[in-house]
Amino acid sequence: MNARMILRVLGYILLIFAALMLLPLIAALCFREDPFPLLFPLLGSAALGFLLTLPKPRSTTLVARDGFVIVGVGWVLISLIGALPFCLSGALPHYVDALFETASGLSTTGATVVTDLDAMPRGILFWRMFSHWIGGMGVLVFLMAVLPMSGEYSMHIFRAEVPGPTVGKLVPRAKQTARALYLIYIGLTLAEALFLRLGGMSFYDALLHACATAGTGGFSTNPASIAGFHSAYIETVCTVFMLLFGVNFNLYFLLLIRRGRDALKNEELHWYLGIVLGASLLITLGIRGMFGGFRPAFHQAIFNVATVLSTTGFGTVDFTLWPEYCKWILLLLMVCGGCAGSTGGGMKLSRLMILGKMLVSELRQMARPRSVQRVQMDGKRVELSTVKATAIFAVLYFLLLFVFSALISLDGTDVATSFTAALSCLSNIGPGMTAVIGPLGGYAFFSVRAKLIMTLAMLLGRLEFYPILVLLSPRTWKK
Amino acid sequence: MNARMILRVLGYILLIFAALMLLPLIAALCFREDPFPLLFPLLGSAALGFLLTLPKPRSTTLVARDGFVIVGVGWVLISLIGALPFCLSGALPHYVDALFETASGLSTTGATVVTDLDAMPRGILFWRMFSHWIGGMGVLVFLMAVLPMSGEYSMHIFRAEVPGPTVGKLVPRAKQTARALYLIYIGLTLAEALFLRLGGMSFYDALLHACATAGTGGFSTNPASIAGFHSAYIETVCTVFMLLFGVNFNLYFLLLIRRGRDALKNEELHWYLGIVLGASLLITLGIRGMFGGFRPAFHQAIFNVATVLSTTGFGTVDFTLWPEYCKWILLLLMVCGGCAGSTGGGMKLSRLMILGKMLVSELRQMARPRSVQRVQMDGKRVELSTVKATAIFAVLYFLLLFVFSALISLDGTDVATSFTAALSCLSNIGPGMTAVIGPLGGYAFFSVRAKLIMTLAMLLGRLEFYPILVLLSPRTWKK
Repeated sequence: MNARMILRVLGYILLIFAALMLLPLIAALCFREDPFPLLFPLLGSAALGFLLTLPKPRSTTLVARDGFVIVGVGWVLISLIGALPFCLSGALPHYVDALFETASGLSTTGATVVTDLDAMPRGILFWRMFSHWIGGMGVLVFLMAVLPMSGEYSMHIFRAEVPGPTVGKLVPRAKQTARALYLIYIGLTLAEALFLRLGGMSFYDALLHACATAGTGGFSTNPASIAGFHSAYIETVCTVFMLLFGVNFNLYFLLLIRRGRDALKNEELHWYLGIVLGASLLITLGIRGMFGGFRPAFHQAIFNVATVLSTTGFGTVDFTLWPEYCKWILLLLMVCGGCAGSTGGGMKLSRLMILGKMLVSELRQMARPRSVQRVQMDGKRVELSTVKATAIFAVLYFLLLFVFSALISLDGTDVATSFTAALSCLSNIGPGMTAVIGPLGGYAFFSVRAKLIMTLAMLLGRLEFYPILVLLSPRTWKK
Repeated sequence: MNARMILRVLGYILLIFAALMLLPLIAALCFREDPFPLLFPLLGSAALGFLLTLPKPRSTTLVARDGFVIVGVGWVLISLIGALPFCLSGALPHYVDALFETASGLSTTGATVVTDLDAMPRGILFWRMFSHWIGGMGVLVFLMAVLPMSGEYSMHIFRAEVPGPTVGKLVPRAKQTARALYLIYIGLTLAEALFLRLGGMSFYDALLHACATAGTGGFSTNPASIAGFHSAYIETVCTVFMLLFGVNFNLYFLLLIRRGRDALKNEELHWYLGIVLGASLLITLGIRGMFGGFRPAFHQAIFNVATVLSTTGFGTVDFTLWPEYCKWILLLLMVCGGCAGSTGGGMKLSRLMILGKMLVSELRQMARPRSVQRVQMDGKRVELSTVKATAIFAVLYFLLLFVFSALISLDGTDVATSFTAALSCLSNIGPGMTAVIGPLGGYAFFSVRAKLIMTLAMLLGRLEFYPILVLLSPRTWKK
């Protein structure tokens, strides 16, 4: 393990993180609020970051494991520091609550323990929403986009932070890839902010909701979430952008370099659109009566399909009151999540596609033992190592789902609440499927123990298990 | 596909099935009940079986796929025929109810739609309980034990019907292996019947409960299940034998040939005993107050751990009233199930062990990329193909769990009921984790559609998916 180099990169992360905290600080100053709850953590992060970059590494080589360690430790560090503004401002006086909220923000889950949103200072509210934007694309990807780092090792970090089974480089060098991703990310965020502003949102609300959509997070400045804006136009804008942020960003890059036809041929995109349409129609059939007609029902159905499939978690209505089969469609979408290389959580659609194709090829192999069966995506053969890694990921996902459900149930919550809370945290959604933790509920009532368990689940989900598991593995720390 | 040979083996299955129906027929005659509800299906099965064996196959060669087709079609056939006595006797006038009950019996699930057990003729009750015994070890394994079949192809059938990831042959030939398994099975069943008789059960009850335990089924002649016998001794006997039938039968074979030391070294056995003890102690802590002390609480805890882990489903108390974390321990055990090569259902402990070891080796590989990691069981390397098949099995299990939950929820049952009903059916347990389908509940209230869905789930679970999936795959039926 190249400890000095790891410390140096961690130092960079903290410096970047401090720089990102400047934005909410400026917001606090604009609103003439007490700047210190944001200023102190900012200075602390900057100082610690500076100290960590002081020891000069003998070599800049980092192996894959170092990438996992950096991502794992980095995310734990920024969660711990990012929680301080909530504590210091008195918005969430208990540190564990603040930590839960920050991890929920950075992991783009959007589960909240805040009970009185209107009482929160607007600078802190900015920080809360902005954390989704930071976590969505990843602070390390940002680091790579702005800092001069040699390409050999940065791909390891890149792979460890960007979600999905196969991270293709858009362009030969990781740095350019990271830059391209962030430019698309910023562009889409600003576009959404503009559309929301045109719908009558204030500049502040429009920007923050665009940030929360971009990261597929789900926090809102309004206690009633998107429903609080009473605008079908705003709901439609959110639906469209939630779906857009659930798509693989590589496709936008292809659009940019005028290879849009290739983007449209993408197999995952076809399934994604098919699932959105199919699920929305099936749900519409079940809720038609509740909303008085096909059109308003479809409007609600597609909004909530988008919010759950993209793992955002914005709310317009309490879908825990919908027919049971509609809830299970949403639960299945929660497992699925967005496309690979998007900011969405869950298992990722392409993983489920690989698993489905693996099962079909296995059955074909059984029916015709002498035939040769291959798993293909977009006309290319999927490497056996990718198939294996995907299967391991799925098994880990489902086992952790059961284990976290059991751990959460120590609070005495019923089976459905424990199970869907675990699912929601692991997939980085936000709301669960019972009234207490549904779109109108919250996580404030859970015990300190349950909140810490869910914090772990959210980080595990966002980083797709390995960076956190590598940290928890004793072997990593052996000489 | 060797159609004539497949038909011939299916014919044998029906002949054997008719022969097995003689026992409940004798019971009906002893109790001076109407024999016709049993006699007609028996004669029908025998006649159809005889007809199917008439065409002379050109070759006796069967490939792996043929094995799956035989097992899949065979089990569907005996479920369809086995349901007739329930209908004809008027015990379950609706055919779908009768089919559900038969599939539940043969798959050793033990979920029931019978609401008035006391009104059921005793011959039919015998058939209901005895179906557990037939399904536990498998009708095809029985076939192999008694019929002269050449060894080359019978192993395919054997593999398709006996649960678990790796079916080791005990002795070089499948026929002898099948015989050894059935002798151990019969011996243990008779031993339990003896112990139950000594505890004050009638001969009839003792034999039938021994059959239900042997198959890890869960039906009872008493509407209150084991609790109805009001005997701690009988509960203890059931606990011990449920645990014994959840153990890999190969270990008993090793004991018989005086290689008991090898049997005791078995890694899966150690985990099995460790899990039983650990889970029972954890649950005891939670229910101590409900039963007034450690000893009675431990007695209940270990009975219910045994009933769920072995996937039997006998009931003494309503565990859906236990603390939430205790329910989740039981739910985790439901996923796990018995050892490979036992009559227990679920994913099988050895599969979870292989998955756990696979995850550990993956993490080690990440920490030390140049090290060579192998998955080992009992000191021997597990083949990569077994590891792959195990991962596919697990993914399939969890995906089907979600899909069946969604399908069952079409009845409007709440999330916890739909989910634990699907889990209970797929793992062949019996009771679910909410009051309506708990140890004191039943499945009678479900719609015809839900009952058919659960029938499919139970058969899929018992046959470990592939024989049924091969039947449902259009490719199997292409020329």
